[in-house]
Amino acid sequence: MAKNLFGSRFVKMPGHITEQPGSLTAPSGFMAAGVSCGLKRTGKPDLGLLVSKAPCASAELYTPNAAAAAPIRICRQKAQSGAIQGIVANSGTANACTGGRGLDAAGEMTSQAAGLCGLPPAGMAVASTGVIGMQLDMNLVSSGIATAAAALSESGGAAFAEAIKTTDRLDKQGAVAVKLPAGEVRIGACAKGAGMIAPNMATMLAFMTTDAGAAPELLKEVLGRAAASSFNSISVDGDMSTNDCVFLLANGESGVQLRQDSRDAALFAEAVAAVCKSLALKMVADGEGASKLVEFRVTGAASQEEADRVARSVAGSPLVRTAFYGGDANWGRIMASAGAALAGAPELKADIFYEDTCLARAGEAVAESINQKRLAQIMSQAEISVAMVLHRGSSAQTVYFSDLTHDYVTLNAEYTS
Amino acid sequence: MAKNLFGSRFVKMPGHITEQPGSLTAPSGFMAAGVSCGLKRTGKPDLGLLVSKAPCASAELYTPNAAAAAPIRICRQKAQSGAIQGIVANSGTANACTGGRGLDAAGEMTSQAAGLCGLPPAGMAVASTGVIGMQLDMNLVSSGIATAAAALSESGGAAFAEAIKTTDRLDKQGAVAVKLPAGEVRIGACAKGAGMIAPNMATMLAFMTTDAGAAPELLKEVLGRAAASSFNSISVDGDMSTNDCVFLLANGESGVQLRQDSRDAALFAEAVAAVCKSLALKMVADGEGASKLVEFRVTGAASQEEADRVARSVAGSPLVRTAFYGGDANWGRIMASAGAALAGAPELKADIFYEDTCLARAGEAVAESINQKRLAQIMSQAEISVAMVLHRGSSAQTVYFSDLTHDYVTLNAEYTS
Repeated sequence: MAKNLFGSRFVKMPGHITEQPGSLTAPSGFMAAGVSCGLKRTGKPDLGLLVSKAPCASAELYTPNAAAAAPIRICRQKAQSGAIQGIVANSGTANACTGGRGLDAAGEMTSQAAGLCGLPPAGMAVASTGVIGMQLDMNLVSSGIATAAAALSESGGAAFAEAIKTTDRLDKQGAVAVKLPAGEVRIGACAKGAGMIAPNMATMLAFMTTDAGAAPELLKEVLGRAAASSFNSISVDGDMSTNDCVFLLANGESGVQLRQDSRDAALFAEAVAAVCKSLALKMVADGEGASKLVEFRVTGAASQEEADRVARSVAGSPLVRTAFYGGDANWGRIMASAGAALAGAPELKADIFYEDTCLARAGEAVAESINQKRLAQIMSQAEISVAMVLHRGSSAQTVYFSDLTHDYVTLNAEYTS
Repeated sequence: MAKNLFGSRFVKMPGHITEQPGSLTAPSGFMAAGVSCGLKRTGKPDLGLLVSKAPCASAELYTPNAAAAAPIRICRQKAQSGAIQGIVANSGTANACTGGRGLDAAGEMTSQAAGLCGLPPAGMAVASTGVIGMQLDMNLVSSGIATAAAALSESGGAAFAEAIKTTDRLDKQGAVAVKLPAGEVRIGACAKGAGMIAPNMATMLAFMTTDAGAAPELLKEVLGRAAASSFNSISVDGDMSTNDCVFLLANGESGVQLRQDSRDAALFAEAVAAVCKSLALKMVADGEGASKLVEFRVTGAASQEEADRVARSVAGSPLVRTAFYGGDANWGRIMASAGAALAGAPELKADIFYEDTCLARAGEAVAESINQKRLAQIMSQAEISVAMVLHRGSSAQTVYFSDLTHDYVTLNAEYTS
């Protein structure tokens, strides 16, 4: 299980972190389970339960999507923000666009799971992923929750991770030990999703556990900053799906308490950010049918908003993304897409680099001096870093996207509603 | 050649219009040619020339793309807006991102073509389409212009149309006769492009000729309104490619003069709008690899900006578009994409109709009452109309998009820079 989480060169593992076996249940005091209750026609696991023995401080991020699913609405209405101690999750059905019946179902999921785990109902969150517009079969779900509650174990992290998968091919789970001045803590994590820049709207769920102790305010700050450079770099603001959510639960079982503005807190935040970025990159790399992972860095933008806009335009362009699939260093499509994002602005005189190779300078091809052998080698990489300098200001944004492949079309044309 | 232009049920041909043989050279006094000069490696036609014997009033639309190509910049700088009498166009190379050399080349194209056609240089416009970042070979282009000038003829419209194609499969040309109270005029048209909603950035070129007479101001108004319900409904503001442009040339050879606010002008405007919409729908239907044409109408938006934003989000969603390819009435993906476009807004309680079949009401599935046989029949249509009622206000927007297919990926992964 080692080296499970940190596989991409686009994320550096800080020196005070080491990978550990296991995932959500690697930190002390967490139990999990994953079972099949019949929501997936394939019979694969589709219901997961996670719970901490001790009360937790927590941080949560919920999708701003105006068509947010019932579980998101129930979490917002009924779960006690900052004090989530358990999560019940299902795949197969998103419980989105399901109206009052859907809300009732999501509410029942939390109260049943809380009851069986001995938690106050407000301490149990709920998350769902799958097809939109289909009602949950509560007979199946209820029996699934009962089975999962009976199966809870300190080695159940992997089963939970299985139970939240939909079209995921890659495993997205892992754990790290974090050496802090005050002692060692662990972080466990798992996620599902083939997240990428809009307009792909596949659901992203991410769950993190830690045996560090911390106030909810500190966790909220840590998670917010970590998300900005991870999940929000693959799915920029406002383009989250109906069911997207991220949870961080801290039960303090390690005995290490993180204090605001301490070195412990800073090093912990660095670890959470690295874990989130690893999960996010795995989602992109897994991107439905993806064969390549591209880091696209925009610098020299006139404002942060402009940097975001250009990054998002390029990363969301099917023409750019198919070019990477075809192994073609088609910087012209990047220039065209950035130019569209900057419509009405003065002539774009941008530079574009593929790794160390400059293909355009001041808006113009530099074909003469290009080492074609080096370029071919770059385009054959599984991970490609592309940089664009706009020369319009000093703002920057980095996003990650996957190529657009035949398999993407096959998967999404066949994954029926 | 009849029924060439009006093939989609999404555009109504007004009663005062009849289709005619021919295209750009169907109106009196226009000559055109299309030749091969070697820009395309395939040896196919790649240089077109269009000219009116008599001086013209004209209207032009140019891309706002900040990386606009040299021909666009030359037209803006050197061509006399409102008095374009001829156009030289090439395919194979877009002459975009080509710097000062590219500007010189585009400028030379206009002066050479104008010289050979006996026009003042400011009366000749230039348009290019093809690969970005490659310099034009001016030896080839110059000889092509000379050959084309010698080949100009009153039946050259079809050859011109061939010369501007790149990945186009469908023919996009035609002509109509327009019965006006003041007499009959003709409109000829041709276009290239697999235009669709952002972020696809394939070039769209459209050329229209008429033997009606009109002031440039009137033509500008006519073209602006026609574009809003056609080209701008397949490629919303700001998402035009580096080379997009639209021209309307009026030489008055019919003897019919259109006066501002006259019934003649109104009927003429209606005809131009119908022709533009037909061209635009052909671009979508031809959409690279497309197998289906979808009309997506958003109503009940809180503002025009909101209607545009939702329409664009849905039409640009790969998940929505692959669902149509798969023949799946996946309204959930439409709701999710609209919800993302409305991030932060109150719960979206939208209705979604596929033709006459309501699949979601007030944000929720109406699965029980659906006629599945009828739905299957709808999804098998080549043209599908989808409507979404947001219940947030009274603004509306209609857009047209194609499905996302295996062929799209193949075409764009292989069309190299």
